[in-house]
Amino acid sequence: MTERLLPETIDFNGPFPTLSRRLRLGVVGGGRISATQATAARMTDRWDVIAGALSSDPERAKARGAEWFMDPDRCYASFEEMAKTEAAHPDGVDAVMITTPNHLHFPAAKVFLEAGIDVLCDKPLTNEVAEAEALVDLTMKTGQILGVGYAMSCFPMIRQAREIVAEGGIGKINQIHVEFLQDWMTPDDVADAPHVKWRLDPKISGPTSCVGDIGTHAAHLASFVSGLEMTALRAEFHVCGAPKPLEDTAFMFTRFEGEVPGTLMATRLAPGNRGGLRLRVYGSEGGLEWDLENSEQLKFYRFGEADRVISRGHGHGVSAATERLVRTARGFPEGVIEAWANLYTEFALAVAARRDGIAIPDNWLSFPKVSEGAAGVQFISASVRSNENGGDWVEI
Amino acid sequence: MTERLLPETIDFNGPFPTLSRRLRLGVVGGGRISATQATAARMTDRWDVIAGALSSDPERAKARGAEWFMDPDRCYASFEEMAKTEAAHPDGVDAVMITTPNHLHFPAAKVFLEAGIDVLCDKPLTNEVAEAEALVDLTMKTGQILGVGYAMSCFPMIRQAREIVAEGGIGKINQIHVEFLQDWMTPDDVADAPHVKWRLDPKISGPTSCVGDIGTHAAHLASFVSGLEMTALRAEFHVCGAPKPLEDTAFMFTRFEGEVPGTLMATRLAPGNRGGLRLRVYGSEGGLEWDLENSEQLKFYRFGEADRVISRGHGHGVSAATERLVRTARGFPEGVIEAWANLYTEFALAVAARRDGIAIPDNWLSFPKVSEGAAGVQFISASVRSNENGGDWVEI
Amino acid sequence: MTERLLPETIDFNGPFPTLSRRLRLGVVGGGRISATQATAARMTDRWDVIAGALSSDPERAKARGAEWFMDPDRCYASFEEMAKTEAAHPDGVDAVMITTPNHLHFPAAKVFLEAGIDVLCDKPLTNEVAEAEALVDLTMKTGQILGVGYAMSCFPMIRQAREIVAEGGIGKINQIHVEFLQDWMTPDDVADAPHVKWRLDPKISGPTSCVGDIGTHAAHLASFVSGLEMTALRAEFHVCGAPKPLEDTAFMFTRFEGEVPGTLMATRLAPGNRGGLRLRVYGSEGGLEWDLENSEQLKFYRFGEADRVISRGHGHGVSAATERLVRTARGFPEGVIEAWANLYTEFALAVAARRDGIAIPDNWLSFPKVSEGAAGVQFISASVRSNENGGDWVEI
Amino acid sequence: MTERLLPETIDFNGPFPTLSRRLRLGVVGGGRISATQATAARMTDRWDVIAGALSSDPERAKARGAEWFMDPDRCYASFEEMAKTEAAHPDGVDAVMITTPNHLHFPAAKVFLEAGIDVLCDKPLTNEVAEAEALVDLTMKTGQILGVGYAMSCFPMIRQAREIVAEGGIGKINQIHVEFLQDWMTPDDVADAPHVKWRLDPKISGPTSCVGDIGTHAAHLASFVSGLEMTALRAEFHVCGAPKPLEDTAFMFTRFEGEVPGTLMATRLAPGNRGGLRLRVYGSEGGLEWDLENSEQLKFYRFGEADRVISRGHGHGVSAATERLVRTARGFPEGVIEAWANLYTEFALAVAARRDGIAIPDNWLSFPKVSEGAAGVQFISASVRSNENGGDWVEI
Repeated sequence: MTERLLPETIDFNGPFPTLSRRLRLGVVGGGRISATQATAARMTDRWDVIAGALSSDPERAKARGAEWFMDPDRCYASFEEMAKTEAAHPDGVDAVMITTPNHLHFPAAKVFLEAGIDVLCDKPLTNEVAEAEALVDLTMKTGQILGVGYAMSCFPMIRQAREIVAEGGIGKINQIHVEFLQDWMTPDDVADAPHVKWRLDPKISGPTSCVGDIGTHAAHLASFVSGLEMTALRAEFHVCGAPKPLEDTAFMFTRFEGEVPGTLMATRLAPGNRGGLRLRVYGSEGGLEWDLENSEQLKFYRFGEADRVISRGHGHGVSAATERLVRTARGFPEGVIEAWANLYTEFALAVAARRDGIAIPDNWLSFPKVSEGAAGVQFISASVRSNENGGDWVEI
Repeated sequence: MTERLLPETIDFNGPFPTLSRRLRLGVVGGGRISATQATAARMTDRWDVIAGALSSDPERAKARGAEWFMDPDRCYASFEEMAKTEAAHPDGVDAVMITTPNHLHFPAAKVFLEAGIDVLCDKPLTNEVAEAEALVDLTMKTGQILGVGYAMSCFPMIRQAREIVAEGGIGKINQIHVEFLQDWMTPDDVADAPHVKWRLDPKISGPTSCVGDIGTHAAHLASFVSGLEMTALRAEFHVCGAPKPLEDTAFMFTRFEGEVPGTLMATRLAPGNRGGLRLRVYGSEGGLEWDLENSEQLKFYRFGEADRVISRGHGHGVSAATERLVRTARGFPEGVIEAWANLYTEFALAVAARRDGIAIPDNWLSFPKVSEGAAGVQFISASVRSNENGGDWVEI
Repeated sequence: MTERLLPETIDFNGPFPTLSRRLRLGVVGGGRISATQATAARMTDRWDVIAGALSSDPERAKARGAEWFMDPDRCYASFEEMAKTEAAHPDGVDAVMITTPNHLHFPAAKVFLEAGIDVLCDKPLTNEVAEAEALVDLTMKTGQILGVGYAMSCFPMIRQAREIVAEGGIGKINQIHVEFLQDWMTPDDVADAPHVKWRLDPKISGPTSCVGDIGTHAAHLASFVSGLEMTALRAEFHVCGAPKPLEDTAFMFTRFEGEVPGTLMATRLAPGNRGGLRLRVYGSEGGLEWDLENSEQLKFYRFGEADRVISRGHGHGVSAATERLVRTARGFPEGVIEAWANLYTEFALAVAARRDGIAIPDNWLSFPKVSEGAAGVQFISASVRSNENGGDWVEI
Repeated sequence: MTERLLPETIDFNGPFPTLSRRLRLGVVGGGRISATQATAARMTDRWDVIAGALSSDPERAKARGAEWFMDPDRCYASFEEMAKTEAAHPDGVDAVMITTPNHLHFPAAKVFLEAGIDVLCDKPLTNEVAEAEALVDLTMKTGQILGVGYAMSCFPMIRQAREIVAEGGIGKINQIHVEFLQDWMTPDDVADAPHVKWRLDPKISGPTSCVGDIGTHAAHLASFVSGLEMTALRAEFHVCGAPKPLEDTAFMFTRFEGEVPGTLMATRLAPGNRGGLRLRVYGSEGGLEWDLENSEQLKFYRFGEADRVISRGHGHGVSAATERLVRTARGFPEGVIEAWANLYTEFALAVAARRDGIAIPDNWLSFPKVSEGAAGVQFISASVRSNENGGDWVEI
């Protein structure tokens, strides 16, 4: 008798359903973001984190796994071995998170997908456009789930913003501005730190450093909320701090479907900014503004009316679809781990639906999917080409 | 061979140590706050939530337990049965959270403590002062851990505030103001809702409704940050909304050690306020202000200097002790579930230390303890007496 | 032929009308607040500041007057002389501002009113209730204009708040909280400064220091916006900083018409607070919040809806009556001098109407009048009596 | 005997000195901004507004003048006539403000300067670069004062920011971002309003609409605070709202001395933004951020320290030079009219010094001067050329 994960009947307009068991999650890569994501996965109570490829040194892999209370037999020194063994295991992982440095995203994602294991991969999805396309093809063929770590799109107030735009709440969009400003690269010697070094090595980080790390978050948010694909951009990369082989700052003009213009900016050298991810979408009837550092509130303007602030919680302007992602009462703050947990909740439901062989409505789960990951890689690639040719316009 | 939970050597100034296994947590009471706390416990990766007394109806108890993936054998229909069975179980729970309505806090806490199981009990610790004193005695005798759910004191910026005061950063305190304003009782018919009804029934809620629910959070925070015990108060209770048997609003003048004056205010009828818990401490050299709805930032004023804002994260004015409670980078917000997780982390370490028979430094773990719970009950009791005698001063 | 100041026909719903000439203003008392008020009067273009009693030393009076470009003949060494001379002058002052220390408010106001000259007097109107009543009687008899310097009620967003309450926008009021927190008395030696010394001398400042200076602003605002008179209070005075003969801090419970409860707090020892005048009014359907340090914005909550922020300017939720007090476009900030200028504009219209012998609609001009000044003196007096009897309730 | 306006000895480090009489100000152009500026001039008590060319229709010119209490003989129907007559008048105006539509700035400024009358001219200084250069030449030759209406640089907190940069408070600047976002052009039909129409007519407004109106404010502020000249830019103009002959939106990349990169953005179609002028300057050691809608506060970050907020007032991080521009106590807000008043104060001192034939220290008065006006015209011109050639880099 086959296992059934989702309930027999699902109310797609109600709260998200409970699964018949926790799913089994594996971890590939053992850096700080894997800890954050594992924390998020655990808080959903939909995942047990049970296996990992946390180091290429077998001893170290086991030692790190022990800190996570993993069975030593499920602590692998390579993701190839992990994929092979887990796929064959009767209680093998249902999915893995991939949180390695960028250049391993593609091979790791590929090997797990080919082993029949679903994947949640960090951004950028890959370092090359062709690789991203290969992953799209692979998932198209197999129907497998490949989520991408654009967790910012899983804040309830971002979902609310998207819904307001979709319902025409700000009219026809006339411009879109996004930026992601940080300051942690301000000290000249920060580039020597081990967790920073690889981000400035083109062989690992890919053709960009800042753009592929945080710029891509901004670009994703712009499209996610506006519902418009970015079609072209012109970009200039800068090294604003100490000399380094890849950009630490980038400025862009952007263009979206329907010739909607915009701007995009990313830097790690803006002292006083840390989670400075800000979205501003303006239209013929109103505007929306959101800031990661004030993530509980969405500013919503209708021209001619008093300004509005929608805050995360139940009712008071929050839609039923958004409420599915709400854990604590309005005014009792949630944060970025909860956004990751929303991603892991939706990802779990997608994984479960695939295993159950159930078709789900297109817009039931809005977590970032492989197509969005591929669009992100194309965005990065286009920005590199534009910068190389002096900032000319490049189609995406 | 006895199990050892904590490492052989502990650096009490470093990050909190990992335990040799996850602790086992039971849940008594199955309302919304138990879900929040269980989420928090899970995110620490220091607890497995494995047993519960989630309903007095055996069928319902098992059904609720199933949603939490509990073994049906560990789903009890009474906390007495749960205490007895779990105490005898080779892998019995190490501790329980008590999240029942108020009148059951005392009997439940008592039965688990007597069974040798540590307890984290919601506030108010008990409905009667004598009960609270009995629990203090019990823990004194047995050395058991009885934590209390004043989770607001586990926000990193509250810990930072307490440290600044202790180090003399604002000089000699001259006044302390706290308030907790909410608005969910604004609609006249809200009192009929099942999760509200018991809060207005003196037999269950105890002698107060609003004071024992949120006023006590405010009072705890005032003492926790200032390091001063509240010694006296005068209180007036009000029913500002629809008629009801217990107060929905209370105003107080307060007095702390050293004759420091203050005010305290709590209400559920202030539209626009939800998590309106605000602390303001002023001294001869500076001031501190914190607001739950902006919990990531602590305002710190030194008279004569530019104003300062300390934000949660590493460095930039955050102390090493506070950093132990930090999960995500500055600017990537954490929230109230993370505050609860901090409580569960420290509680886990205290439980482990007791089981290991290890003495730990007094100020290593600052989670709210039984003495603070008892002080909260005395605060509530004093406010009732003052209100009854027309708002005269009452010693606590 | 008599002069006519106001136009023949006035649209009481339109912008305020232009007068046929600037009115002539005299200044009694030459401290900092007189400079602020004169600046405000000038910016209205409805007043020329042409005469003054700026010092009791004749030489100094002339020297100070010269800085203000006053004719030496119009610089007086006593207000009695000034009242007599100006009343007889063909181009005598139409009105005076009284900005002396508190104990001179009464004799100065009396002498100018008796000379037929209108008065705008600083708060507190007088130091004794009987004196305030005498001034009320005097204006009743003569019809003269006696405005009071509660300038905070002349911020556009305060007017908007009052209008929202009057129209039922927050339903039936259930509680009112006001506070005025400052920090300039934090240093121990500040009391020795000349402009501070008199504020701590009961013979000059009257029976209170902090309450009569800033507490009375808070009390006025509470009544002004709510439309409810304060009927009773209980007060406790404190000296939170260095020892001094009068209170530097006061906490109160208040009661308004219809048994609406509230709180009031004033202190000069809250480091980080400067213009910390904050108003919060909550009702059965919504709430209003305003803060002097963010005076351009009014928070307006309707329970169950998204929060609103009304900002000073035209339209976008600002009423036509409020727009009369708006000078610059939304987003181009105005401040406290503009609030004073609104007071001087409305005062000018009242003075002109009296001189023209024209009846104006009751609610056309909302500047603070003698009755509000007298209510302020009664508030101060009640707070003194309550504090003296241990904080018992005192009817106002 | 010649008149002497300034005192015999001036303390250039103290408060600004009083003049021996009010200066006489004329008004050219009678729109809304002239009312704001006249209000500001009056509040300084350094100017009497006594003459005007408020309309080309003689009757209307007199009628408008009467509203300002001007002598009918001093109300002119053309600025040429005004310049000639006032120059010959024994009590002629000392200076004029020019607040006409843009295309008249040049001829009006020229005629008054040639008549020996100093000028404060609105931005953009002229519509053509050659015109601006001609005015620079003219003032070089005659030593006359030609101020420009970049009033935003006269906010105390902007002055403080400039001082912090100059003293190295943020280290070596690495990037500069400015933007000015408004929303008043959101409605499709707003372009038909009379006060809007000329702003979209290239013959009157010049080669730009939005850039020359608000973009130039942003550009000025960037250079004013950073102390760096803008050397190059690439610009793209957009019409985001209803079709119109000139841009309503512009995005730019900018470059400053020392190859410092930046961005600049201006639009009138961002609903929810009104006075959305924001400056952000980042350097190797810290950052500064300022927003017109929160003009009283300057955010000042030193990397590695707690964030700071400097607020307008005395002390608490505000320098002595900045304090000269402070009127009211910290926390009692000032606004944009006060910024204009600061400009008029400094302009008055410059006019007086010229008339007295006194040399003043270079950095005593920081109001925007003709060279800054000319730089603004060059900025506008460069942006037009860049936009026309597809957004290529253009040297300024």
